[in-house]
Amino acid sequence: MASLNHIGIAVQNLPELKRLFSLLGLETGHIEPVPDQGVVTHFLPLPVVQGHLELLEVTDPAGTVAKFLAKRGPGIHHLSFLLGRGELDGLTERLKAEGYRLIYDQARPGAHQMRINFIHPASASGILIEIMEPAH
Amino acid sequence: MASLNHIGIAVQNLPELKRLFSLLGLETGHIEPVPDQGVVTHFLPLPVVQGHLELLEVTDPAGTVAKFLAKRGPGIHHLSFLLGRGELDGLTERLKAEGYRLIYDQARPGAHQMRINFIHPASASGILIEIMEPAH
Repeated sequence: MASLNHIGIAVQNLPELKRLFSLLGLETGHIEPVPDQGVVTHFLPLPVVQGHLELLEVTDPAGTVAKFLAKRGPGIHHLSFLLGRGELDGLTERLKAEGYRLIYDQARPGAHQMRINFIHPASASGILIEIMEPAH
Repeated sequence: MASLNHIGIAVQNLPELKRLFSLLGLETGHIEPVPDQGVVTHFLPLPVVQGHLELLEVTDPAGTVAKFLAKRGPGIHHLSFLLGRGELDGLTERLKAEGYRLIYDQARPGAHQMRINFIHPASASGILIEIMEPAH
């Protein structure tokens, strides 16, 4: 019935965030003011192979998601981007070289047999961005 | 290079959130524990026709996005679901009847010539959910 159309992001530093998304291969398309909402909207077309919502049910009260819940309450936690196999370590090094803060020094195991890492929200305009590739 | 794979949501009341997504036509598929992250992940396949990131650049310091920025800082603001034309008012009434809180009494104009409304985060586990349909 309903299909995901977009993910809205409240922005403080627009050039900075566009720079980061361009490193992920995403560029600005349509730009449109919406006076009724007091914003200008900048749309970046988003390649999606098969999207999912991922509901994160906490099992470890000392884990990172439990800490997020305690601090911010329930809600959207991260956006996850899938890379081609073998692309994760190269992108990670490039992001580090450009001054972005990664959560892990080395990629770790995630669901669906993925190798995962995260760009820290402090260097991604408040968004926790997962980057991942198939482990095998 | 990178394609959107999923949107992770930190959950406090899992049955409640699954109920809301089922009203939007989204049901749980794959379930997998990720001990390294201290969570069980519940994946809901997500119909996506053409997804976008929507960067919200504030123009009205009294607008709702400006208030969000002042209160929570920059970051993910909402998820937007596209309905078929003529479906918005019926879904809105059904949600109201089930006790969900909508932001607007009547649909309002959004970008891309859409009629839009929002489910309030207070009744959607902390997520601001936009629902919309083509205006013409």
